[in-house]
Amino acid sequence: MARSATGISAIASKEPILERLGTVAIVGVGLIGGSIGLALRARGLAERVVGIGRDQERLDEARRLGAIDEGTTDHSSGFASAQVAVICTPVDRIAEEVRFAAQCGPEGMLITDAGSTKRAIVEAVEADTRARTAFVGAHPIAGSERNGVSHARADLFVERVCALTPTGQTPADRLERCRAFWSALGCRVLEMSPDDHDHSLAFTSHLPHIVASALAATVPVESLNLAAGAYRDGTRVAGADSVLWSAIFLANRVPLGAAIEALESRLGRWKSAVVAGDDSALDQLWQEGRRSRQLFD
Amino acid sequence: MARSATGISAIASKEPILERLGTVAIVGVGLIGGSIGLALRARGLAERVVGIGRDQERLDEARRLGAIDEGTTDHSSGFASAQVAVICTPVDRIAEEVRFAAQCGPEGMLITDAGSTKRAIVEAVEADTRARTAFVGAHPIAGSERNGVSHARADLFVERVCALTPTGQTPADRLERCRAFWSALGCRVLEMSPDDHDHSLAFTSHLPHIVASALAATVPVESLNLAAGAYRDGTRVAGADSVLWSAIFLANRVPLGAAIEALESRLGRWKSAVVAGDDSALDQLWQEGRRSRQLFD
Repeated sequence: MARSATGISAIASKEPILERLGTVAIVGVGLIGGSIGLALRARGLAERVVGIGRDQERLDEARRLGAIDEGTTDHSSGFASAQVAVICTPVDRIAEEVRFAAQCGPEGMLITDAGSTKRAIVEAVEADTRARTAFVGAHPIAGSERNGVSHARADLFVERVCALTPTGQTPADRLERCRAFWSALGCRVLEMSPDDHDHSLAFTSHLPHIVASALAATVPVESLNLAAGAYRDGTRVAGADSVLWSAIFLANRVPLGAAIEALESRLGRWKSAVVAGDDSALDQLWQEGRRSRQLFD
Repeated sequence: MARSATGISAIASKEPILERLGTVAIVGVGLIGGSIGLALRARGLAERVVGIGRDQERLDEARRLGAIDEGTTDHSSGFASAQVAVICTPVDRIAEEVRFAAQCGPEGMLITDAGSTKRAIVEAVEADTRARTAFVGAHPIAGSERNGVSHARADLFVERVCALTPTGQTPADRLERCRAFWSALGCRVLEMSPDDHDHSLAFTSHLPHIVASALAATVPVESLNLAAGAYRDGTRVAGADSVLWSAIFLANRVPLGAAIEALESRLGRWKSAVVAGDDSALDQLWQEGRRSRQLFD
């Protein structure tokens, strides 16, 4: 599924080195954007980190917390001298921000993002000639059910996978710089197509979020005093932000619909085995889940 | 749902005090039975803790780990002088062990258990006159996806709920001693009917286990390198022991079948909203799960 690395990095058998950057612009300085800023500054990877957002107060908070050097609500001035722009907004606003960054930013700018879905974003960006030549889609698979820059951490990306989703239209130099950028933050970089990414993430992330939410809503509140670890862990991410997640679900409808259907089919088998009291079917279903889980560990 | 406490403990407005016990017998010295032994010994609650099991080697390990003072595979000698017997086997063997303890044990013995389901056990015990007058069903809601005495901990029960399920046939003195016993291990004791217990636990524990297993089996193994926190937490308990859990599912078929159906219905609403791209339905579904989860926190 994953494409091999670029020729250069494959020969070197390690990630390309990131040269110290001048200005990096981060659009959306929440948990992810804030953690990128903290990591860039903690690792001395950039001379200046500019936060771009819609709310000056939150940008001021990000500055106080050390996630950015300065913050602005004026996108064009924020992008003006940036060598790298990282778009960390909810997924439904990413493509638009990429196009705007490509318009306002200097020649040679690398634009990347941190969106949890990729196909719709990459398609929308590639419809724009200027944006297409600057952009490499990315998804650092790190996060939390908590939001906001106050939960940001400089080590959020250490040893986490970052999926890059280049296409036949992605310039090789931007791809190499993008690998170097995310590696420098601590990520293990993989490459795959936007479709493969979205299909996998429908199962590994979006479905678990829906399951957690459905489980939380199904357990009667009057029984919660008898809930313990299995409930607590199984519903943890149901506390996440609804705006972020609704946008993700909408951007990945087809793969996610298929993932829900696969789970429904499995639950149907469980229900039949439970209702029938079918000992060996229950045991087999359990063993299959257990083996899959052990592969993850 | 929960019945009020007994008269005595209600007047005192705290749990009855456990007098130091002579011998306590524990049948099944794994994670739960071993933790009971460790807690009894760490808190100086008994003069002697006897482990009863089928495998002398495992009993020897429990003794080395300090969970019991001695171990025997001979049930009748193990029960002979015990003031309290705690049955910690898989649920499908509990009623039989209770009946045997009642036969072999001294007059006045308290028998309790740690089974995750209660109705079938209580019904089977109450069909036996001698066992009925000695038994109080219990379920300390504590555990782990790990098994065996090597994972036992003296503090496993601290601040955890223990549900007692007395019936109209349960003698008041045994109920009071049983409250004192589980409280002395650190539990917060609640009382409820066996049916109420099984109905609640179908939702708060058994369903989350099935969901974790179904989710683990649904995610394609080739995508696991892109799985992160939501998958990890949502599938954690899928690694638990299949013998234990098959027995629990079988003993709670009707409530559990209803719980799976309730979840299926909720997932059906999710699938419709995803496939239709219905923004406001997605948002509403998410908010409902989020509110329930926040009540738990």
